[in-house]
Amino acid sequence: MSNSEKSYKKLLQFQHTTSVLNSCASVLGWDRETYLPKSGISHRAEQLALLFGMSHERSTNQEIEEWLSDCETSDLFNDPHSESATNIREWRKEYDKSVKIPRNLVEEITHTISMGHKSWVEARKKSDYSIFLPWLTKIITLKRHYAELLVTDNKSIYDALLDDYEPGESAENISQVFSQLRDELLPIIDNIVNSPHQPNLGIIHKNYSTKKQREFGELAAKTIGFDFDAGRLDTVVHPFCSKLGPNDVRITTRWDTNNLVSAFFGIMHETGHAIYDQNLPLRQWGTPAGSSISLGIHESQSRLWENIIARNKPFWTYFYPKLQGIFSENLSNTSLESFLHAINLVKRSLVRVEADEITYTLHIILRFEIEQSLIVGDLDPKDLPEVWNKRFKELFNLDVPDDANGCLQDVHWSHGSFGYFPTYALGNLYSAQFYDYLKRQSPDIENEYTKGNFLPLLNWLRKNIHSKGMCYTAPELIKDVTGESLNHNYLIQSFKNKFYPLYSI
Amino acid sequence: MSNSEKSYKKLLQFQHTTSVLNSCASVLGWDRETYLPKSGISHRAEQLALLFGMSHERSTNQEIEEWLSDCETSDLFNDPHSESATNIREWRKEYDKSVKIPRNLVEEITHTISMGHKSWVEARKKSDYSIFLPWLTKIITLKRHYAELLVTDNKSIYDALLDDYEPGESAENISQVFSQLRDELLPIIDNIVNSPHQPNLGIIHKNYSTKKQREFGELAAKTIGFDFDAGRLDTVVHPFCSKLGPNDVRITTRWDTNNLVSAFFGIMHETGHAIYDQNLPLRQWGTPAGSSISLGIHESQSRLWENIIARNKPFWTYFYPKLQGIFSENLSNTSLESFLHAINLVKRSLVRVEADEITYTLHIILRFEIEQSLIVGDLDPKDLPEVWNKRFKELFNLDVPDDANGCLQDVHWSHGSFGYFPTYALGNLYSAQFYDYLKRQSPDIENEYTKGNFLPLLNWLRKNIHSKGMCYTAPELIKDVTGESLNHNYLIQSFKNKFYPLYSI
Repeated sequence: MSNSEKSYKKLLQFQHTTSVLNSCASVLGWDRETYLPKSGISHRAEQLALLFGMSHERSTNQEIEEWLSDCETSDLFNDPHSESATNIREWRKEYDKSVKIPRNLVEEITHTISMGHKSWVEARKKSDYSIFLPWLTKIITLKRHYAELLVTDNKSIYDALLDDYEPGESAENISQVFSQLRDELLPIIDNIVNSPHQPNLGIIHKNYSTKKQREFGELAAKTIGFDFDAGRLDTVVHPFCSKLGPNDVRITTRWDTNNLVSAFFGIMHETGHAIYDQNLPLRQWGTPAGSSISLGIHESQSRLWENIIARNKPFWTYFYPKLQGIFSENLSNTSLESFLHAINLVKRSLVRVEADEITYTLHIILRFEIEQSLIVGDLDPKDLPEVWNKRFKELFNLDVPDDANGCLQDVHWSHGSFGYFPTYALGNLYSAQFYDYLKRQSPDIENEYTKGNFLPLLNWLRKNIHSKGMCYTAPELIKDVTGESLNHNYLIQSFKNKFYPLYSI
Repeated sequence: MSNSEKSYKKLLQFQHTTSVLNSCASVLGWDRETYLPKSGISHRAEQLALLFGMSHERSTNQEIEEWLSDCETSDLFNDPHSESATNIREWRKEYDKSVKIPRNLVEEITHTISMGHKSWVEARKKSDYSIFLPWLTKIITLKRHYAELLVTDNKSIYDALLDDYEPGESAENISQVFSQLRDELLPIIDNIVNSPHQPNLGIIHKNYSTKKQREFGELAAKTIGFDFDAGRLDTVVHPFCSKLGPNDVRITTRWDTNNLVSAFFGIMHETGHAIYDQNLPLRQWGTPAGSSISLGIHESQSRLWENIIARNKPFWTYFYPKLQGIFSENLSNTSLESFLHAINLVKRSLVRVEADEITYTLHIILRFEIEQSLIVGDLDPKDLPEVWNKRFKELFNLDVPDDANGCLQDVHWSHGSFGYFPTYALGNLYSAQFYDYLKRQSPDIENEYTKGNFLPLLNWLRKNIHSKGMCYTAPELIKDVTGESLNHNYLIQSFKNKFYPLYSI
């Protein structure tokens, strides 16, 4: 075995152990959101701060530098899309970032976020921004400090944060895409909401037993490919998907007895994330070659299953009769067409997680603008509610009645996640472009959905996206798969193709 | 600050961090038993092996030796029941044990146990001992090796294992107590099962909604002192109580729609454990002075609440009308007396966890004898079913129909817990002796239970047991509190006092 091969092997072992340690923290994080008793929160903060601190200490181990140097000059680094080169490249990136961040900052951020999250929960419940303000201020100060340590010459400090979620992207590029998107979306939204042909929402808001909702949701998740032997579904206030280890990917939802579909589409969304995680190459678990590319690509998977598959006719041709069977008293007199129209309501509304797939992007644009101002210091956190409400009025022509439905609605900033929001919109863009390409290659694939067969789609995603781990960056992957760089026209066109007929436009 | 004070402070900090790390493992252990998806088990084994390995590495850190040496010659070590002396003494004991065990053995045991447990679950399900045999053999070999590294001159290797659960006890002493107990219990059992006045069990085995069972169980747990803001109740196959951190103590139960009380008494039992854990001194969390004394003392708390409180008349004078209100269709025609008789059935049966409080001890005696033979090598694991069944016949006069109801029924050996079983019987003994003393001091205390007031009892337990952490050993505590060493007559007498009137003997 050559010297570089030996070093690579040592890296594999060392990083595997770090990944196992990180996966322990994932278990504690999942439990914090699902089952942790109220009074246990401050000890959980201490536990997570310790684990992240230990992990950070490992990730700054100087031997990594030596092992990487050996590998970077070897054949292992030749083919940029190979497993070894991918690992070496990403480990280098991670190492260079880690050594810039002192352990006490990692622990302070972890601890502050745990406690800040608690204050946000209370603030949101009482719709009282003043409760969250001191913590938000502290979180922003810490994250700015973190970003300043990482920032490189030609980037903004916001870009340094964005890099944790969407490596290789820049605020400048996203701003351009979002600007175009906004300009094209606003007239589409106007056309739809002004159409006289509006859906009848009556059937959505009847009484639906959550037990039966769960049965149907689990059936659909299983049918499209979620492996319940390697995952589970739990109930939370703020739904998410979490990978706790190989063969352990957990999704969550929240139930509403007066809504037929809100929990269901939540499940479809999280199942999309989970299917990606469950189909990453198992043998490479814990290495970049076995990891997901970026949040944007992750979101492309959840959006694809939620919006492109589960909000369209072929899917419901198969599932609607089953849903009618489960809730026959409510649904027997409603046609598939009326149901499809009802689950595709487009309406300007206050809350991001309840938004339809078109106006959703406007919610993201708002947050993207505001979080940049917060991080670079143009916006004082104390002025956040005022600025939020003013900008919301401009984009949505709606008045925000209270902060719970305004700037306190989302969990992200309380978790210190600045730079996370734009990845949601990128996910929409990626999903539309992937799917447009796939449909051109396999024009008949949607016939399979009508028979409950989602395997051709799943296999295409496995082959073209899941199995590749991080061997391609997001921009490389979209180009490699579809032959073209990210192009917002696919999303715009997909909206027109779907919504204009539904609304007789 | 003197040198010894500095060393003590360093020890406190260092050991606190180790305790936080161990509490992370507790979260993963709890999740393994409650919510872990099937395919996630082998990664969980790897996670726990890593955490225990890291913890073990910390616990053998040579600085501990230096810090301890400074403290042991100082005033901090003067008063044996002081917080500092307790911590120093217990840390010393732990350190001296830890340095004898190599890290790879800790990791191998942890990993083997995780996988062995899985094989036990399957073996029990199929009632096929051959599935578990190779793992049990491996577990015994590893635990014997572990014990051999720890054993001191005048002790058996079984004693070395026992010391992990019941420090200061010996197999010899327990054998003597058990031998007396058995001799006195057998005629009591004969008297009871031969009495013509047997309970009517009809009401126990009607249909009882588990949702309502849960409501009642949670009400009772809360009333006697369980803090649900610092704990929770989940559903499992094998109930347990687990402390995941300060302010995070979780109990579990299993439900049976055809049994009114089996889940309920399980909840009372685990609540007894949890109340002890929730009332240990919070400020000393993570140090011996803030930890429970031994499994025997822990079990004395669960047995006290389950058997001495919740299986007796004062408790049900308060709670039975409530239970009748919840299940009026089944219970309205049954008197309190009939109910009390039914929940105190004494019957020789196959399964320990379903045994009544008298025959229970025989189950423990059987296991205590057998596990000693397994550990010292007198019994080849392949002969376990044969020996189990033969000895069971002698003690219970019952034939074991299959291994699922025989030697495969308990989880403990699959967890590598040898030396654990006798602590259950010790718990019974301690609880009877504590309670006898308390009743002599406060003859009217049971009147309070009839009004739903359990605070006088809880406060007595807090003051005399919980608040003391490990500042007393179990033998010291029983003598300090009751003025007398462990005496099996209290348990025998409590059985006669309760069961002879119920069975008109």
